[in-house]
Amino acid sequence: MSRRTGVSVPTIKFYVREGLLPAGELTSPNQASYGETHVQRLRLIRALLEVGGLSVAGIRGVVAAVDDAERPVHDVLGAATKPLVPRYEREPGDGIDEARKTVAGLIAARGWGADPSGPAPEALATALVALDELGHGRFVEVLDTYADAAERVARADLDYVARHVAREELVESAVVGTVLGDVVFSALRRLAHMDASESTFGRTRGGEAE
Amino acid sequence: MSRRTGVSVPTIKFYVREGLLPAGELTSPNQASYGETHVQRLRLIRALLEVGGLSVAGIRGVVAAVDDAERPVHDVLGAATKPLVPRYEREPGDGIDEARKTVAGLIAARGWGADPSGPAPEALATALVALDELGHGRFVEVLDTYADAAERVARADLDYVARHVAREELVESAVVGTVLGDVVFSALRRLAHMDASESTFGRTRGGEAE
Repeated sequence: MSRRTGVSVPTIKFYVREGLLPAGELTSPNQASYGETHVQRLRLIRALLEVGGLSVAGIRGVVAAVDDAERPVHDVLGAATKPLVPRYEREPGDGIDEARKTVAGLIAARGWGADPSGPAPEALATALVALDELGHGRFVEVLDTYADAAERVARADLDYVARHVAREELVESAVVGTVLGDVVFSALRRLAHMDASESTFGRTRGGEAE
Repeated sequence: MSRRTGVSVPTIKFYVREGLLPAGELTSPNQASYGETHVQRLRLIRALLEVGGLSVAGIRGVVAAVDDAERPVHDVLGAATKPLVPRYEREPGDGIDEARKTVAGLIAARGWGADPSGPAPEALATALVALDELGHGRFVEVLDTYADAAERVARADLDYVARHVAREELVESAVVGTVLGDVVFSALRRLAHMDASESTFGRTRGGEAE
């Protein structure tokens, strides 16, 4: 498995010890056999660690939810994607209550069936407070454009899942799509920025004007 | 300044030593005076560290670019936002060349004036390889929806900057907007997911069916 995935043997053993990866079937005292499911799980762990920046404890929560076949799908999706929301170390300040109200108002206006006290609304409120402190309180004016774009992307995500994903892979796909979809969008946003900046602020490259 | 921003004195001293924050004016041997610019810079550092997850070295690059008034705006914007693209530790594998071609094709099809060898296209190609390895190679089918949404958001970002930001604050605003805009979008995408998931997979909460 180490050869197939490029992950070192001690690292694989560490994941097994930490409960992220099921143990392989022992074929001899120092050789274990791992199947396709193990390889897929190992790739999931690597994506969450390296791309998602999750902690080992966070990943343990995600894989426990992925492996929980008993609970209703919507509940499991919530449990599996909860650790994927970044948490910011912040002192509670004056602005946070107002920001939470803004977020709750947005959720209501959109008709979204989301709990305003969950981790995603809290992350949003924290970002709004940071923007306000940095002199960008008026950023809330473009929140609707962001929300429109987020709705379109979320709809495309769900369509993709409905067309391409077997039900038993649903939760794992949601985790993968949440983490990697963020990376994809943020890279595309930067590309679109560069283009917009180039047309707005001129096309000088390496000091040469064109 | 520590009182105004909630950042401890040793931490402020550390930022000054690391070249992130200009030294205050010494008013006595153990008391320095810091102005509004210092407070704003300190808030920027905290946002990049805590929300953007940047390293001290990355932030040093950002603030050097922000403080560089000589270079053309478009160049400085590029230099300031470059460290904001996450880099993933990956072995170069078979899939990356094909993924780079996909990304270059997308940039050309969009007519984006972006360098396909920059850090953002590379982050995108890496995410596509990870998706492919996890069995989601067909995710490229929704890339155009992502790119449309990214264009809308980027246009809103530029409009916001044009309406609300003084030219001397342009580069700093671009940095703030890039980092915090990602957080805002990713939180909104999760909220939109929850809503879409709730309508698709049912509204059971805490085990109770409605």
